[in-house]
Amino acid sequence: MSISAQYFPNEPAAPQVKTAFPGPQSQDAVKLLGQVFDARPVYFVADYEKSNGNYIVDVDGNTYLDVYAQIASIPLGYNNPALQAVAKSDKMIRAIIDRPALGNFPGKDSEEIIKSLLDVAPKGQDKVWSGLSGADANELAFKAAFFWYQLRRRGYKAEFTAEESKTVMDNQLPGSPDLAVLSFERAFHGRLFATASTTRSKPIHKLDLPSFKWPKAEFPTYKYPLGEHAKDNEEEDKRCLAIVEEKFQKASAPIAAVLVEPIQSEGGDNHASQAFLQGLRDITIKHGALLIMDEVQTGVGATGKFWAHEHFNISPAPDMVTFSKKFQSAGYYFHDPEIIPNVAYRQFNTWCGDPARMLLGGAIGAEVKKHDLPAVVARVGDYLYKKLEGLAQKYPDFIHNLRGKDRGTFIAWSFKEAPLRNQFLSDIKKEGINMGGCAEDSVRLRPTLVFEEKHADILVAAVEKVLAGY
Amino acid sequence: MSISAQYFPNEPAAPQVKTAFPGPQSQDAVKLLGQVFDARPVYFVADYEKSNGNYIVDVDGNTYLDVYAQIASIPLGYNNPALQAVAKSDKMIRAIIDRPALGNFPGKDSEEIIKSLLDVAPKGQDKVWSGLSGADANELAFKAAFFWYQLRRRGYKAEFTAEESKTVMDNQLPGSPDLAVLSFERAFHGRLFATASTTRSKPIHKLDLPSFKWPKAEFPTYKYPLGEHAKDNEEEDKRCLAIVEEKFQKASAPIAAVLVEPIQSEGGDNHASQAFLQGLRDITIKHGALLIMDEVQTGVGATGKFWAHEHFNISPAPDMVTFSKKFQSAGYYFHDPEIIPNVAYRQFNTWCGDPARMLLGGAIGAEVKKHDLPAVVARVGDYLYKKLEGLAQKYPDFIHNLRGKDRGTFIAWSFKEAPLRNQFLSDIKKEGINMGGCAEDSVRLRPTLVFEEKHADILVAAVEKVLAGY
Repeated sequence: MSISAQYFPNEPAAPQVKTAFPGPQSQDAVKLLGQVFDARPVYFVADYEKSNGNYIVDVDGNTYLDVYAQIASIPLGYNNPALQAVAKSDKMIRAIIDRPALGNFPGKDSEEIIKSLLDVAPKGQDKVWSGLSGADANELAFKAAFFWYQLRRRGYKAEFTAEESKTVMDNQLPGSPDLAVLSFERAFHGRLFATASTTRSKPIHKLDLPSFKWPKAEFPTYKYPLGEHAKDNEEEDKRCLAIVEEKFQKASAPIAAVLVEPIQSEGGDNHASQAFLQGLRDITIKHGALLIMDEVQTGVGATGKFWAHEHFNISPAPDMVTFSKKFQSAGYYFHDPEIIPNVAYRQFNTWCGDPARMLLGGAIGAEVKKHDLPAVVARVGDYLYKKLEGLAQKYPDFIHNLRGKDRGTFIAWSFKEAPLRNQFLSDIKKEGINMGGCAEDSVRLRPTLVFEEKHADILVAAVEKVLAGY
Repeated sequence: MSISAQYFPNEPAAPQVKTAFPGPQSQDAVKLLGQVFDARPVYFVADYEKSNGNYIVDVDGNTYLDVYAQIASIPLGYNNPALQAVAKSDKMIRAIIDRPALGNFPGKDSEEIIKSLLDVAPKGQDKVWSGLSGADANELAFKAAFFWYQLRRRGYKAEFTAEESKTVMDNQLPGSPDLAVLSFERAFHGRLFATASTTRSKPIHKLDLPSFKWPKAEFPTYKYPLGEHAKDNEEEDKRCLAIVEEKFQKASAPIAAVLVEPIQSEGGDNHASQAFLQGLRDITIKHGALLIMDEVQTGVGATGKFWAHEHFNISPAPDMVTFSKKFQSAGYYFHDPEIIPNVAYRQFNTWCGDPARMLLGGAIGAEVKKHDLPAVVARVGDYLYKKLEGLAQKYPDFIHNLRGKDRGTFIAWSFKEAPLRNQFLSDIKKEGINMGGCAEDSVRLRPTLVFEEKHADILVAAVEKVLAGY
């Protein structure tokens, strides 16, 4: 029996659209919600009680095949019974109501919970620090990088000078040093202040916010299909790596870390090649900086491996790998003991993560392993990609630069222009598909890990129906 | 029947210390945990299954009266049955396993959940935006403040210039403006990068981190007992307010917001007077800046009012009030519609809070209201404060500057020097009391809201026993 049938014996067989989008009850609910909350970005109000597997139901009773999945963050389908069992467990109930200050008073099951996250750590990583969101995970990783960088600068002496301890309280040198994280054009790493300083996908994410004047480099723009443009794409990698090298050489503030997504997701599903990522690894080692792999959106199976960068066998392994979204718990993996701050209480806060979410994350990891879902995703992704390749040939005006071959269901394509993309996203909802965009002109597929061939068939038929009408 | 007896019929009658501190099983557990997590700050490993009401039990079977309560963040005692019921509810189970992207696909119960948080909003506040931790709440408030400040600068025009949209992607002016948040010496507002730039309590919180060069002002240092030094303390308020005024006049970057705790908690339980806080309100209005009240540690009943600043009747109300910790959900309250960003998706992220934690927060708020726990805390606090006043007279060498009169159980005092304070915190654990420090030389009491006279008696007896031995 297929995995979705095992989990969801009552999963709908097809989408069902009963009303215009959004439906009247959704509109009423949004109006009420808008009185107490910023509801302008709401697409529709969902009925999670009725949602099941790959299908999300709204308050009007419309049933959508969900290939957006809460901005790429539902791993195993709605109301997954295995996760339901975890949510009902005594351990979870205690984690919710007796939330510990994990760094000071961990519970007797904390070690087990942390080990469950480590059970699915990326190759080469064996330690973890926990946070609360993707942006939080990245900022915690930045902190670890800056601590590490300064430790090395001091020649591994633990002592801070009196001047450092004094000046830091005024946010001044030398206690508060001028250090940087290098990120890439079109990157998205979050919207807190330091992460916003590394995010470069859209102005709206960061307009009017003070920022760190950190540098950026160019992320490769490949020609598609990749196989037909190998030489050009190699040159593009070299060109972009040369820019990174130059940024290091000309940096006004030392670069403590390079931060990169293996696939820039919000920024348009821009895939990095093995050569580019290995090149970054080599440059960071040469310059004594850390390499932070942001797997917030790419992690947990969607590319056909548990972690997307595991497609590339980067050596040595990245220094930190950040996670959140489909893992439902957040933080960073690492391996080098030097990345543990030299003094206790430097990487610390009241909660140090959320054991309730970590417990769920461990259960998600265990399910993914047990059912080898990356293999399922790889199989379904190949099936889906081929079908979309067919559509791309049939509708070349509407499917450009199809991306995600051999990357599971982590698939995207571009339209010629933003208005057309937006029209498509609106029209596909009328066919019962909940889909999301990325960059200005692209759509991205981010289904759950239990999205299978039968769901892919429905998706492809809906895409074709819409495109045939253009 | 007292509220603790209602909730906890089986609450222990007294602490019980069976082993040295920390016990052998705790030490073993810390060693194991330390292999996968930074366990250096761990005091002991807890058994949350056995913890009950005001008592925390460790893996060695030691039972401590907990007046630290997970760094001031357990509101209603361990394994509270009312919260247990919420944790077991179908709504909670769905909130855990079907975590929505709240801004895009809220659930049908989202409005009700948000309203439950607004039910206990501070006087004058009627809107809320949700986050994940105290630091996150403060940074979200900073973002709202900067958006608001620039909106006013532009004369309420929504359009961004092409130059702004271009320069912001390089973290440069004018898209990324040079704006500041003013905070106070000894303040603690979190340890992310922007919040760390406003935190001024200890160097270890921020050493080696790049920071925004934001200004600080002095927080009043009063003479105790307050009643005997009214004139001096008034002068101190005036002196400190004059410094704030000067900081505005001489600011190199415009100050968009003043951020203040009504009682600086991590920084030493430094209380602000009504005059000081009203003075800040007046100065911020005069200069067109926002006043952000950080109630992360002081909120949710512990001072004898639901929100500590409600003791002061600041007029007009603060522009934003941030919360986390005992509310178990985080965010900021506000009232001015202008603080809603002018364009959608400016205050946004994948999760926009955690409905599971918001559901719990609403339930906590409802219990606090139902049982009028601020009144209980005020009553117990008066009782406790008087007893400690007696001890202060008896042991004047060890209880200095007793603070928290008429502020519920939010009580602290200082020792002459840090080593003595540290010795006391160690010795009091041997008497079965789990207590925390603040600043370098003080101890702070942060019991739950269901800490009653019988618990206060046990606490006071233990304090006296330790002090009598010095």
